[in-house]
Amino acid sequence: MNYRFQIATKVVFGKGCITENKEELKKYGKRAVIVTGKTSAKTSGALDDVSAALNESGIEYTIYNEIENNPSLENVKEGGKVAAAFGADFIIGIGGGSPLDASKAVAVLAVNDIDPIDLYKNSFNSKPLPIIAIPTTSGTGSEVTPYSILTRNDMQTKMSFGNEDTFPRLAFMDARYTESMSYDVTVNTAIDALSHAVEGYISKRSTPMSDVFAREAIELFGKRIDNLVSNKIDYETREDLLYMSMLGGMVIAHTGTTIVHGLGYSLTYFKDIPHGRANGLLMKEYFNFNYEAAKEKIDKILKLLNMKDIEEFGALMDKLLGKAEKVNDEELYKFASLAMKQRSTSFNIRSVSEDDMIYILKKSLNHQ
Amino acid sequence: MNYRFQIATKVVFGKGCITENKEELKKYGKRAVIVTGKTSAKTSGALDDVSAALNESGIEYTIYNEIENNPSLENVKEGGKVAAAFGADFIIGIGGGSPLDASKAVAVLAVNDIDPIDLYKNSFNSKPLPIIAIPTTSGTGSEVTPYSILTRNDMQTKMSFGNEDTFPRLAFMDARYTESMSYDVTVNTAIDALSHAVEGYISKRSTPMSDVFAREAIELFGKRIDNLVSNKIDYETREDLLYMSMLGGMVIAHTGTTIVHGLGYSLTYFKDIPHGRANGLLMKEYFNFNYEAAKEKIDKILKLLNMKDIEEFGALMDKLLGKAEKVNDEELYKFASLAMKQRSTSFNIRSVSEDDMIYILKKSLNHQ
Repeated sequence: MNYRFQIATKVVFGKGCITENKEELKKYGKRAVIVTGKTSAKTSGALDDVSAALNESGIEYTIYNEIENNPSLENVKEGGKVAAAFGADFIIGIGGGSPLDASKAVAVLAVNDIDPIDLYKNSFNSKPLPIIAIPTTSGTGSEVTPYSILTRNDMQTKMSFGNEDTFPRLAFMDARYTESMSYDVTVNTAIDALSHAVEGYISKRSTPMSDVFAREAIELFGKRIDNLVSNKIDYETREDLLYMSMLGGMVIAHTGTTIVHGLGYSLTYFKDIPHGRANGLLMKEYFNFNYEAAKEKIDKILKLLNMKDIEEFGALMDKLLGKAEKVNDEELYKFASLAMKQRSTSFNIRSVSEDDMIYILKKSLNHQ
Repeated sequence: MNYRFQIATKVVFGKGCITENKEELKKYGKRAVIVTGKTSAKTSGALDDVSAALNESGIEYTIYNEIENNPSLENVKEGGKVAAAFGADFIIGIGGGSPLDASKAVAVLAVNDIDPIDLYKNSFNSKPLPIIAIPTTSGTGSEVTPYSILTRNDMQTKMSFGNEDTFPRLAFMDARYTESMSYDVTVNTAIDALSHAVEGYISKRSTPMSDVFAREAIELFGKRIDNLVSNKIDYETREDLLYMSMLGGMVIAHTGTTIVHGLGYSLTYFKDIPHGRANGLLMKEYFNFNYEAAKEKIDKILKLLNMKDIEEFGALMDKLLGKAEKVNDEELYKFASLAMKQRSTSFNIRSVSEDDMIYILKKSLNHQ
């Protein structure tokens, strides 16, 4: 079979990894822009460690901490202006998926004077600035993917761009930075990572290599179910979840996602349901929908999770996520229609119609 | 735990991958030197495919086909001169481990006017030329490692150099090119790949990520034992072996090797035993020596190979490799002493003395 493999990111994993590897920073230049949100970089401790390492390395930097949750094109445009004005040599993204994804857009816009909508052309005159990614959640995997998922208000959804040059060149992964996540964020991001592994594993685009990463990630989730359910999230669990989320990123770097993400984007855009939670609500019906088309792989997933059937998986999601949000007919139709327009829908292992999308949504949410 | 992960190579895998991806070549420049040996590039068909792709892309090239088996510093020096004189923008290595490793040295020497012995300083004023690697055997894994293993006649052994910049930037992996291997070469290189996975898995330097690759590689070897034993090596087997060898490379890119390679180098240097065969002869006693120190992992290896104990593994090696070569006392002492000087020896999971080395050699070979 024919496939590609590429993870262009060098990963440095472990407690204290920034301080211990600060000499890495100098390789990328003398002026950096830190791209982050209002809080997580600070409360996680990552910003302090990075600032200290930059100071000790004699690297000038400025902080752009205006990244919103689910950043819009308008938001990253502003970041690009800041980076251009500062004359940045490289970009450091700190945070969850939103700041990390935004940092990729900022890296492009800092050196390309284009309308942010043209990010989706995926071809740029000037090579994006090098990106260093520092996750403070364990779900996105953005630190090892080229993808930047931005909110398109013009299309009322989220959509990703990215090419070989938007892979972060370096990722610092220190599980201490994820200790500041609340229980809900921990659960939601873990489920996001699981959905990356699962969707990639069952995708039409799965490869032998992406399957290796996917199985490992799914097994790690299985190993940590008890910790998640009982809210006993010690440091070893944090390290496993961070590692799992990186593996999930390595999966989708090759496969992309499918209909869980495609449907989930609407739940986030219109109903403000956190991304990972949205995926978790949909996953049981996603398995049911695809079971006949991917029996062997779904059985393998259940085995790696130590579960006897899809029902048991659904019960776990119920336990972790509680009651699903309400949805009415009008929303069902709109969300299904928008999901049909996502390119990733075509990679689902079983062909999906708009009616299928409506059915999955209806079964997954609290339909009224 | 703290560790690094980096595979800086983009891999394109599958039948026809060069022809289908020839646009990749243009990214590296307008003038290429093909570094290869006398025969395998031609008989494998790889040289024809590369030449056609280069011609169609308007890339000028020359061929340096003087790479010896187990290339020496003198040999790569010559290659470096050819590449410098040609004004190469990039290097294409085609072949087994010898040409691929040599291509890395040529890429450095083409742009650094240094004595080849200074390759071992691992720090170069000018960045090595980009390297494209095209394996025609399935053992070395060199296409996804930064290592270049060269013969040091001054030290009567083989020794490796390599840094982040000597990772091939691109690997074309087409199992058709491995069909021209003889049965012996197929077996020897498969065992070489297995030894990479096994040594990395048990190494002090093993990481969670390298272990993922190692287990996958070992399981693939297990799946193909019957094909190897019965010499029924169809195309699917070739693809699995090539994939396995890449995974083995991804393991040692992070862990390096240990005493199997350290001892094996002498068997190759002084007794002309092919590299993979040398490793295979030593592997049973390597397991016995390390069993108490790495019980859980060696049991896992045996399980992945579907074997009940180390004896069964030894019997398989006997079947695949036949009678071991003779060795006398003088050789034992010399080989053990040289292996003690290899840096990789310190990464063996159990501390090794010179007497231990002698014991392993004596039990592995036909001592007289």
